[in-house]
Amino acid sequence: MALINEQFLKLSESYLFSEIAKKVNTFKVIHPEAKVIRLGIGDVTQPLPSAVIKALHKAVDEMGNIETFRGYGPEQGYRFLIDAIIKNDYESCGISLDPDEVFVNDGAKSDTGNIGDILSKDNRVAVTDPVYPVYIDSNVMGCRAGELQNNGFWSNIIYIPCHAGNNFIPEFPEVRPDVIYLCYPNNPTGTALNRKELKKWVNYAINNNILILFDSAYEAFIQEEDVPHSIYEIKGAKQVAIEFRSFSKTAGFTGLRCGYTVIPKELKAFNFAGDKVGLNQLWNRRQCTKFNGTAYIVQRAAEAIYTPEGKAEVKANISYYMRNARLLYDNLKAIGLEVFGGVNAPYIWVKTPKGISSWKFFDRLLFERHIVGTPGVGFGPSGEGYLRLTAFGKYEDTLEAIDRLKTWKI
Amino acid sequence: MALINEQFLKLSESYLFSEIAKKVNTFKVIHPEAKVIRLGIGDVTQPLPSAVIKALHKAVDEMGNIETFRGYGPEQGYRFLIDAIIKNDYESCGISLDPDEVFVNDGAKSDTGNIGDILSKDNRVAVTDPVYPVYIDSNVMGCRAGELQNNGFWSNIIYIPCHAGNNFIPEFPEVRPDVIYLCYPNNPTGTALNRKELKKWVNYAINNNILILFDSAYEAFIQEEDVPHSIYEIKGAKQVAIEFRSFSKTAGFTGLRCGYTVIPKELKAFNFAGDKVGLNQLWNRRQCTKFNGTAYIVQRAAEAIYTPEGKAEVKANISYYMRNARLLYDNLKAIGLEVFGGVNAPYIWVKTPKGISSWKFFDRLLFERHIVGTPGVGFGPSGEGYLRLTAFGKYEDTLEAIDRLKTWKI
Repeated sequence: MALINEQFLKLSESYLFSEIAKKVNTFKVIHPEAKVIRLGIGDVTQPLPSAVIKALHKAVDEMGNIETFRGYGPEQGYRFLIDAIIKNDYESCGISLDPDEVFVNDGAKSDTGNIGDILSKDNRVAVTDPVYPVYIDSNVMGCRAGELQNNGFWSNIIYIPCHAGNNFIPEFPEVRPDVIYLCYPNNPTGTALNRKELKKWVNYAINNNILILFDSAYEAFIQEEDVPHSIYEIKGAKQVAIEFRSFSKTAGFTGLRCGYTVIPKELKAFNFAGDKVGLNQLWNRRQCTKFNGTAYIVQRAAEAIYTPEGKAEVKANISYYMRNARLLYDNLKAIGLEVFGGVNAPYIWVKTPKGISSWKFFDRLLFERHIVGTPGVGFGPSGEGYLRLTAFGKYEDTLEAIDRLKTWKI
Repeated sequence: MALINEQFLKLSESYLFSEIAKKVNTFKVIHPEAKVIRLGIGDVTQPLPSAVIKALHKAVDEMGNIETFRGYGPEQGYRFLIDAIIKNDYESCGISLDPDEVFVNDGAKSDTGNIGDILSKDNRVAVTDPVYPVYIDSNVMGCRAGELQNNGFWSNIIYIPCHAGNNFIPEFPEVRPDVIYLCYPNNPTGTALNRKELKKWVNYAINNNILILFDSAYEAFIQEEDVPHSIYEIKGAKQVAIEFRSFSKTAGFTGLRCGYTVIPKELKAFNFAGDKVGLNQLWNRRQCTKFNGTAYIVQRAAEAIYTPEGKAEVKANISYYMRNARLLYDNLKAIGLEVFGGVNAPYIWVKTPKGISSWKFFDRLLFERHIVGTPGVGFGPSGEGYLRLTAFGKYEDTLEAIDRLKTWKI
């Protein structure tokens, strides 16, 4: 008799963003005339850079010619892309990596979700709260979360609350975790950790044999000097951290699907006997068995981001979105709301006014101003009382949203 | 202290095809002058059809234009592709499917590997032997394989031997499994099941609440009328089977990465309490959490396979490879070897002469004829004494390989 993985039954049937989509659809049925501005899901609106488009056309032509056609590529990614990544994203920050420490993927979501494959289900997992739902949901599926309690917390997950009260800087938890997810610049709060704060976490991990899963999908949006772009800028981090990066937000790849994961060879975890085992070789084995590499043409597209033309276009893209971020931040503040994030990240984390709930604020914003946000509580219990807005909208839409907000009697 | 998934330590460090690549590289260092013909790994050599190339260019242009740019797509795939799949691959065989029963992916390897996520680790898994290594390795990682024994069998896996002695038709195992992988047309043996034989397995699954994981990545190569293209051609199969399909071999997508998985809504498995649970909703939840959809441009490429132009080109491609298959089959037979498969599949399964081992035959073929095959034993213990050749080479190379074989003193 075929048995299911019962952990799935503990999960709510739909993913947060499907829930929001349903609400928005209902609203549009009731108000077909309303022009809804979507600042909810973190999807980009600017098209792919022309350097990327050019590279794609070229690679497509190669695939149509028997002389230049490419079939199966390396599961780990092509060297041309890996070399470009190392040279531009790491050596430029003084970090050296071997090519076999970088694994190209079809986006950070896949790898942050699948990384649990190589880890024991007995690990105690910690997350900062609020948190990107994939970290929690994938650990529920992987049997590490325990039971969902009435207060919204999973019994086996260690939550590290981040809120205005502690300036969104995570403090060491009372119970020591085995694995901790850190996402900086942070989704959803838009806040960042400076060098000193990140160093504290790396040292904590080194001293306690903790594995850090460092999601830096938003590193390209960092504006302040003192905020590290890679965790490996911190001494010793290669011993304790896996880093996940993405081209999704950086270069508009949300519909093209490419990112990468760095697993240094000196990074070790333990077997039950207490012997050290390199995670790099385990992940390599996992990828060779369960993944067949990212499309060649997509890898050529990613490579083009690192050309001078591509770099300039990506920079312009980032500036475009960060102008939105600043506008949202400044104007929301001006109308009397408490706002966070938005300086080193494309997310604005808004405190709901008068202590109303996240969903209540979401509903009012949608019904009264026709703007879609994301209820903070959807990211975890500490997100209650907040709402996330993204800077990924079109400039004109962002301006219009601000106009609508200015005249809002909250 | 972060713990690894210890199951990984039970696996040999490298995947079969990496092992072969190493041997071939060594050979080429010793004999740089030799022209090696690769009939080992099942990778295609013909370029993408021109209908696909055209569709790719068009979709790339859309992605470069702010009006037509697409960001995140549905995790399950775009309706335009799902509709084309249902209409052309299923309705044409009298099978009806709802759009939410089809999940577009980045290739069948990912889904056949990841499907275990939604299944309990307590399921007893059966495979036909020899077998595509991903089924075994992913179940080792998923804690369902037990221990590797000296005879090459995993202690918890139920093996169903397929060999010349039983005409490669799997018989019901003595121990009843919970889950069984069936791959037909078969990789690696190249043999197929006719309607009557497949019906026997569907009925067995219905009567015993067994889940069939049906991999039909090679269905496009079927030539004989009596061989079903989809397991759902068999009455009742929707209650018991997941079907995996791929565009890799059909349309040269090995480097483009696209396939799909069908999970009918009437397909149920059980929780420990014995209640039925639909697998469709579990897989949907898994994909929403751990996958972000296949690239839009790749889905447009796959859609183009179903245009009249695309269909004609795919058909020509298949004929091209199946001509190779026939040539290999006939000529290997003519030189006195026992050969199987090759009629409804692009694989030729050769019995090694004089009872020599698979690896010995592989070595001799490489050193004496400069041809790369795949040792049958790499696919499981029942593959010992066989070698797999693929029909995916270029026609000219296949002819040259045959010429070399004709003069071979085995």
